[in-house]
Amino acid sequence: MSSRGARALTLAEAAEATGGRVLGDARVTFSRISPVHDAGPEDLALLADRRYADDLEGCGGRALLVSDPLSGLPGGPRDRIVVPDAHRAMVTLLTMMHAAAPPEPGVHAAAVVHPGAQVCPTASVGAGAVIGAGAKVGSGSAVGANCVVGDGVAIGRGCVLFPSVTVYPGSDLGDRVIVHAGTRIGVDGYGYVLVDGEHVKVPQVGGCVIEDDVEIGANCTIDRGSIGRTRIGAGSKLDNLVHIGHNVIVGPRSLVVAQVGIAGSTRLGEGVVLGGQAGLVGHLKIGAGARIGAQAGVISDIAAGQEVSGYPARDHRAYLRAMANLMRLPGVLKRMRRIERRLSGEAAEADD
Amino acid sequence: MSSRGARALTLAEAAEATGGRVLGDARVTFSRISPVHDAGPEDLALLADRRYADDLEGCGGRALLVSDPLSGLPGGPRDRIVVPDAHRAMVTLLTMMHAAAPPEPGVHAAAVVHPGAQVCPTASVGAGAVIGAGAKVGSGSAVGANCVVGDGVAIGRGCVLFPSVTVYPGSDLGDRVIVHAGTRIGVDGYGYVLVDGEHVKVPQVGGCVIEDDVEIGANCTIDRGSIGRTRIGAGSKLDNLVHIGHNVIVGPRSLVVAQVGIAGSTRLGEGVVLGGQAGLVGHLKIGAGARIGAQAGVISDIAAGQEVSGYPARDHRAYLRAMANLMRLPGVLKRMRRIERRLSGEAAEADD
Amino acid sequence: MSSRGARALTLAEAAEATGGRVLGDARVTFSRISPVHDAGPEDLALLADRRYADDLEGCGGRALLVSDPLSGLPGGPRDRIVVPDAHRAMVTLLTMMHAAAPPEPGVHAAAVVHPGAQVCPTASVGAGAVIGAGAKVGSGSAVGANCVVGDGVAIGRGCVLFPSVTVYPGSDLGDRVIVHAGTRIGVDGYGYVLVDGEHVKVPQVGGCVIEDDVEIGANCTIDRGSIGRTRIGAGSKLDNLVHIGHNVIVGPRSLVVAQVGIAGSTRLGEGVVLGGQAGLVGHLKIGAGARIGAQAGVISDIAAGQEVSGYPARDHRAYLRAMANLMRLPGVLKRMRRIERRLSGEAAEADD
Repeated sequence: MSSRGARALTLAEAAEATGGRVLGDARVTFSRISPVHDAGPEDLALLADRRYADDLEGCGGRALLVSDPLSGLPGGPRDRIVVPDAHRAMVTLLTMMHAAAPPEPGVHAAAVVHPGAQVCPTASVGAGAVIGAGAKVGSGSAVGANCVVGDGVAIGRGCVLFPSVTVYPGSDLGDRVIVHAGTRIGVDGYGYVLVDGEHVKVPQVGGCVIEDDVEIGANCTIDRGSIGRTRIGAGSKLDNLVHIGHNVIVGPRSLVVAQVGIAGSTRLGEGVVLGGQAGLVGHLKIGAGARIGAQAGVISDIAAGQEVSGYPARDHRAYLRAMANLMRLPGVLKRMRRIERRLSGEAAEADD
Repeated sequence: MSSRGARALTLAEAAEATGGRVLGDARVTFSRISPVHDAGPEDLALLADRRYADDLEGCGGRALLVSDPLSGLPGGPRDRIVVPDAHRAMVTLLTMMHAAAPPEPGVHAAAVVHPGAQVCPTASVGAGAVIGAGAKVGSGSAVGANCVVGDGVAIGRGCVLFPSVTVYPGSDLGDRVIVHAGTRIGVDGYGYVLVDGEHVKVPQVGGCVIEDDVEIGANCTIDRGSIGRTRIGAGSKLDNLVHIGHNVIVGPRSLVVAQVGIAGSTRLGEGVVLGGQAGLVGHLKIGAGARIGAQAGVISDIAAGQEVSGYPARDHRAYLRAMANLMRLPGVLKRMRRIERRLSGEAAEADD
Repeated sequence: MSSRGARALTLAEAAEATGGRVLGDARVTFSRISPVHDAGPEDLALLADRRYADDLEGCGGRALLVSDPLSGLPGGPRDRIVVPDAHRAMVTLLTMMHAAAPPEPGVHAAAVVHPGAQVCPTASVGAGAVIGAGAKVGSGSAVGANCVVGDGVAIGRGCVLFPSVTVYPGSDLGDRVIVHAGTRIGVDGYGYVLVDGEHVKVPQVGGCVIEDDVEIGANCTIDRGSIGRTRIGAGSKLDNLVHIGHNVIVGPRSLVVAQVGIAGSTRLGEGVVLGGQAGLVGHLKIGAGARIGAQAGVISDIAAGQEVSGYPARDHRAYLRAMANLMRLPGVLKRMRRIERRLSGEAAEADD
């Protein structure tokens, strides 16, 4: 967890790398990019979205990185880089400025590595980390301070485990996997059978596979299979505080936003997107490319490419229309009473 | 956190233990049970649910454990055990194969145990664990690596604390309690009073009691009482990422699924079931055997045995019916406009 | 994490401090306050809310602290303090009884403090804690066991970090900040760009500022800025399991209840209240004093002082009224069919 140093760039260099043009002094340098409202006198301020245009007034940045359609807005620094898409340009510049430093290899004196574990000499193990018997840590991987890696766990190459991660026995991590602080991988799933009125634990003896290029946020919980294996597909990205139940399969290149929960044995196809706080019950099939809205509650299968919202989750547009109509219900009730009064009035007239 | 070795069984032994019958070679052995889609050449594949029948084709397992009604399905291994209920049979077999090994007794050299703590000689304390003054760890209990057990905490017999659990002072754990990695027990509750526009902390000085045979998932947070005690009743099971507020009482033998939140001072009766991501506001009474649906938002008392869903939570069936009707609202509005047009047409005719 | 000792008080002292009057023996002492249902023979039982009046029968407390309007209720201890507001009186008494002990200064022998870190001699660092290069811990602050404080992190004066907290590099904590066990501060935010079908990580290089007098519950996750800084305003209080995305600004004196999630770049004004499990999408502006209901899903800006509920979040009263009407929809449909039958009957008659 060393702080990342940043390489300074001139506006000229930055414009060349991003296909932009410089207005003002091209020799100006910066070593940090900041949003317009928070830019200091050494910073390149970023304006990529019109909704933050008001922040330009009073912007303290040294220079401005701005998307072409917004370049004419008043206020803000006069030395500028104008680019087609300031957000994309920022990503390019950040990647140039902040090349990830490989971790300093070696096992910290205050780490506890079992003699039967295999830690590659180019890997690093932080203070207080505990590595179990038969565990493997691949080349260039970094196990953060106070992590606990269980017996027999395999961690591939170029992985980063931030501090205080737990990996239970029976878990395998591929290459270039990033796991943020406090995440638990391979936890016993939630499985009980009722025997004479008591919930008796079903042994949870399966495994957990995290494929290549997965990133997992902080304080997530990923259960091992009860039998079989829970699997997070290659290139998928999980945000913070996500819960993945036992035997779940997350397809490759899926996006799982913060606080989502997926119950046991549900299987997601490739490239599924789950909005924040969405919940999926167990034993579902979610087709490739499906999009589950924030806070949606999914209780039945979702076809490939479908977009759903609400609880129980339904077609996204239909749900929003229905909720809009719901707010008009008081008016509907009034109109109905008016009709009924009129009809009963006619009935009364007919009786006269 | 040692990996669990598994004892191998023959199909004959397995059939006898589960009241099943063998089709094919009864001498075949297996040392792992796997779901049909994930079974390797040494595994007993499990088919308990018709919805996974398609996985039989191409199943690589050595033998098949199958429920009687599904035993005629085509494909899959020919050596089979046919049982009345394959899921129950699996539980029986797993329990035979994976007898939990008692933890190796002793305090790891890299643990920090206060001289005033009492750790039973048959208990184990992992590397990096910290045990405070006056704390007690009972016989056969295991405190995982990097756990922190506060001053005066009592942990009973046969408990398992997985790595990086925190138990704040003022907490008592009964016997055979299982706590998964990263869970926090006895946290200060959320209590403030407004004084001159500032939120001033109310001292949280109560305790927290976890009764016998409770299992708590990973990364949960259980607050201590503000005054008095928060209590998780005997035999209750909490899934991952559950939040329990101060002074909450969870009745015995309750089930609390992942990401549920219960606000302060709410009391649950015996055998309550809370679905995933459900939320309960504070100061409620939830009767014995009540069932709260996934994502339900409960803002008033629930009677014993009642089943509720939605926000605000209402009778489960009524809620689902209402939501189904909601989707028909656009049609209702159309019909109403037609009626109104017709009536105004009549009115117009009457005016003629 | 030492247990807090409590100073004993007499009823006379307690009544004087709280502006109450004693009924019975003013010399009675107590050293603990408990709720009525859980009070032991040495305790002052608290009755502040009529809904717990039934607990008075069988109350085992030594004396009773009761709000004036409830002082005539039958049952319970006869020695009493009658006050205008028993809950406020409890806060006063707890603060007198439980003066927070300053942590014992010094660095535990089993802590790992980088030689380039600055730990004030009056601060304390627990066993297994790891403090990085260039980090600063201010006077009187306590870093709990197994915490990890990253390189260059600044922690102010009088802070308390409970065990197993992680503070990533680039984070600054003000004075008197309290952080509960397992919370992660300064985590990489959730930012990717799609390049040739793969989600490529956007470097997360911003910072995280926790201002003075903030308290953060257990197992929360607070992301650093992507660029710029995430900020939790002075005096704000976060409950357990809260997620704060990158670049979010929480205004001062806001209350964020358990399991809330706030997506990236959303900005809250001063004194906002977020109910439990509420979710806010990114890039919103939430005005000062707005109140977001429990489980609300906010997808658009909220004006200052507005109170909203539901998904998508709308005016609180309108939403509850709409949900109540929703339950009447089956009746509406019946009435509409009756009208239609009647009108088609008339049409049929007209055709005759």
